[in-house]
Amino acid sequence: MKRVINNRKPLILVTNDDGYQAKGIVSLIEAMRELGDVVVFAPELHQSGMSSAISTSQPLRSRIYRQEEGLTAYMCTGTPVDCVKLALNKFMDRKPDLLVSGINHGSNAGISVIYSGTMGAAIEGCIFDVPSFGVSLCEYAHDADFTHACKVALRVAKTILDKGLPKGICLNVNVPQGETKGIKITSQTHGKWVNEYFQSTDGNGRDVFWITGNFENWEEDNENTDEWALANGYAAVVPVRIDMTAHDLIPELKKWEF
Amino acid sequence: MKRVINNRKPLILVTNDDGYQAKGIVSLIEAMRELGDVVVFAPELHQSGMSSAISTSQPLRSRIYRQEEGLTAYMCTGTPVDCVKLALNKFMDRKPDLLVSGINHGSNAGISVIYSGTMGAAIEGCIFDVPSFGVSLCEYAHDADFTHACKVALRVAKTILDKGLPKGICLNVNVPQGETKGIKITSQTHGKWVNEYFQSTDGNGRDVFWITGNFENWEEDNENTDEWALANGYAAVVPVRIDMTAHDLIPELKKWEF
Repeated sequence: MKRVINNRKPLILVTNDDGYQAKGIVSLIEAMRELGDVVVFAPELHQSGMSSAISTSQPLRSRIYRQEEGLTAYMCTGTPVDCVKLALNKFMDRKPDLLVSGINHGSNAGISVIYSGTMGAAIEGCIFDVPSFGVSLCEYAHDADFTHACKVALRVAKTILDKGLPKGICLNVNVPQGETKGIKITSQTHGKWVNEYFQSTDGNGRDVFWITGNFENWEEDNENTDEWALANGYAAVVPVRIDMTAHDLIPELKKWEF
Repeated sequence: MKRVINNRKPLILVTNDDGYQAKGIVSLIEAMRELGDVVVFAPELHQSGMSSAISTSQPLRSRIYRQEEGLTAYMCTGTPVDCVKLALNKFMDRKPDLLVSGINHGSNAGISVIYSGTMGAAIEGCIFDVPSFGVSLCEYAHDADFTHACKVALRVAKTILDKGLPKGICLNVNVPQGETKGIKITSQTHGKWVNEYFQSTDGNGRDVFWITGNFENWEEDNENTDEWALANGYAAVVPVRIDMTAHDLIPELKKWEF
């Protein structure tokens, strides 16, 4: 699985879903510059909850907003996945050695991996066979302290640059607030969001529904889950497979008379 | 896995990503009415390629556009996943016995399961523990003939109403054009989209990038894949697991020194 970097510095693609101005990506860019040359391709606007969405009816535009030795940073009008696709199809002259998406303002543990634009971007990198991970801090504040999350991101990045990742696998990394006790390899906690809407009215008295809710953890006591790790002060690393096929179920389904 | 329907008619939630006016969902609604009471909760606008995206900064609105014996149909301003969430949180007085999303205008085989709003809705139903499947016809035309796709959807729906589905599993059903030779249980074809952008300019001469591309199949000769089934005249059914954890990789990753 080891990736040969030759004599070149590693080339690292950085993106996110909170937009290019978010503190999380600004912090992540500086951290990744310690490891290699960085290309940023980040959404112009906030793209939280965009999952693996792509722009099918609107064209994309992009422009450079920052350029200096070892760093070229673009913003793009699309979703996180649009950013990764456009960067890799049109703007990068070689495949990056690593893609890092984040640092997200807020957790993407548990079922949130499905809705996360941060993880959408990491999954897209993985589809392109680029070793990829998403990293999220369990704090939503725009001025959150990303010091410890950057340290975790650096450790994960160094490990991946050294060892690579198996084909079709990316990592979902979540970091608790404050100092971390260490890094745990975990599974995606089973559970779902509940009480998901706050019902209100607009200025004309018409019903509107705002998303909200709480995560209902179905595995509270399972020490092998990402939610358990985070609740106990550890960063959680979940290996995510992009082939969603339930291969083990195919023999059983073949017996069904469809 | 068998789902007890008691003496009630099955309650079926229908949604899609092409919007409530698309011929695919209009055809699907009529097919599903043969099996039970139908509630439709479909996007007001085209939502192709929206994956599992949710609206995080805009409120949702919905209204009934059709109501008659055994059918209540709502349109909603959000994404396919927003539709499913809002229907199940706020508009349905009991959990449906089945969710069907589609019939999509165009294939969602292979890696497209990741980007598909049709499958985003089916995955969301599965998160709510509702037996769910997405169904897509391999033809993009707005006036495509959905006769055979409806027959396949009915067969799959009847089987699921009879047998249920294992927890955490939904189905991705793709149907070729014309008569089908039968239904094959398959895996998600490994491959990716390539040459994904058409570069053009806007009216002011500025660069814009439109999504396009071709699916590059990495398993051309694998008869167990959905793309093989479709190319050979069969409908393809892939069991999709919503837990994306690569459980088999966890012991190996635990040995790495992060």
